[in-house]
Amino acid sequence: MSGVPTIGVFDSGFGGLTVLRALTERLPQARFVFVGDTARLPYGSKSRRTVARYSAESAQFLVRAQGAQFLVIACNTASALALDAIEDAVPVPVLGVIEPGASAARAASQTGDVLVVATEATVQSHAYAAACSARGLRALEKACPLLVPLVEEGWTEHAVTEEVVRIYLDELRAEAAARGMVADTLVLGCTHYPLLRPVIERVLASGDAGAVRVIDSAESTAEAAVGLLHAQPGTRAGAIAETEIRCFATDSVEKFERLGSRFLGRPVGKVELLDLGG
Amino acid sequence: MSGVPTIGVFDSGFGGLTVLRALTERLPQARFVFVGDTARLPYGSKSRRTVARYSAESAQFLVRAQGAQFLVIACNTASALALDAIEDAVPVPVLGVIEPGASAARAASQTGDVLVVATEATVQSHAYAAACSARGLRALEKACPLLVPLVEEGWTEHAVTEEVVRIYLDELRAEAAARGMVADTLVLGCTHYPLLRPVIERVLASGDAGAVRVIDSAESTAEAAVGLLHAQPGTRAGAIAETEIRCFATDSVEKFERLGSRFLGRPVGKVELLDLGG
Repeated sequence: MSGVPTIGVFDSGFGGLTVLRALTERLPQARFVFVGDTARLPYGSKSRRTVARYSAESAQFLVRAQGAQFLVIACNTASALALDAIEDAVPVPVLGVIEPGASAARAASQTGDVLVVATEATVQSHAYAAACSARGLRALEKACPLLVPLVEEGWTEHAVTEEVVRIYLDELRAEAAARGMVADTLVLGCTHYPLLRPVIERVLASGDAGAVRVIDSAESTAEAAVGLLHAQPGTRAGAIAETEIRCFATDSVEKFERLGSRFLGRPVGKVELLDLGG
Repeated sequence: MSGVPTIGVFDSGFGGLTVLRALTERLPQARFVFVGDTARLPYGSKSRRTVARYSAESAQFLVRAQGAQFLVIACNTASALALDAIEDAVPVPVLGVIEPGASAARAASQTGDVLVVATEATVQSHAYAAACSARGLRALEKACPLLVPLVEEGWTEHAVTEEVVRIYLDELRAEAAARGMVADTLVLGCTHYPLLRPVIERVLASGDAGAVRVIDSAESTAEAAVGLLHAQPGTRAGAIAETEIRCFATDSVEKFERLGSRFLGRPVGKVELLDLGG
């Protein structure tokens, strides 16, 4: 790899734009190509075989048609179910979101007890629990199915959202306490959740159960990607003045353009429609 | 048609079980076959062409493989975008949910001004507004994207849900008032919403904007189906002792079984996995 790196970022929807945002903050002189497979979401209800096939198709588009030299799988379901299949499908390094999140939790936790909030599909895969366990952590996962719709409704600072977050976190902490866990770390295991970080931190601070540090797996993944890229020769030789971002979606381009900017932290611009079939 | 009728009911998910429930209450001596195309939901973000193809495949399965003599399309998106395509695909009568809902609103409204709550996809199709307009009604539609996730979370009697319903209905009534409308009727334009009818009626009753009657399009559709069936010779000669229900889903059978009973008002029993491809 040499010159300006082209980094492919893939998600089943547009939540993965939070990972792209974290990447652009750390790699302002790179090219990014993002694919949101919005026509076929949600991946969470689909079988491993189907998720692997869909993810491989997007990965191949990013590498073959867009010249990506490095792939970030900014989708928890695809990271949990299809990382091996994606690695088999393309000849470039592939990084998912789960391992970096678990590594950041390992670095942050003093007690070794970790809480994870995620979508139902991610929780059912137990991918975070497995990745945490491999690092000597005990993890308790909780599905929070209302949080994605609340973010997509734009209620990121709404009293209703704060109440829902409080209910979910109270339940999670009560269950952790019942298991004798002393959790000091909370992993945001969904690419939508970084938009709720302020309200989540406020709810955590208002409790009386001790300080809990929040790990944003989008941030952790971007840090891991930078580390891997810098370990490869030539990738620091940025030759463009500013970040280049190109976004593709397989459906719902209008919704992607409308909501995507909140996740990316800047206008997503024109989103191109991509036909992957199926 | 003669003897015990077999009625096919189709939805992109399992929300249409509220329509099936309303049908079984009125036709206890019939056979019902339900298909939820859970592998390919949500239909709301897909193009008209894709929705038409998917819907036609399910309709053909119901008629050809399951012997349905009458189809109820218990899905607002498919009713809005694909009713013609389904009628072309199968040789049996087909009834959608939108026209019966609009007819019930016409019968109920004194002022001629009607409110409609539905998913974003249904609102964007403006199918209810068009069907109401064809009956001389003025309709104002509002997307309520949090209500389906709240129902699926099981929070049908939760304080958070009541607050969300209040926010949505306050916004809707304020906009109606700003347009000079005197709305006396609210159409539930989503098959999930009948589970929220108690909280919706409570919120409406607590307001000071005059009485509003709630129209449940699942109920209206079942009533229209009974009328159409009884107009056909032989269909009243029920020869079975009790309702027979067979449910198919194209994915997520476990979730269908777990949540479906709330919608159907009785156990859904074993849900069979159906492969419609793609």
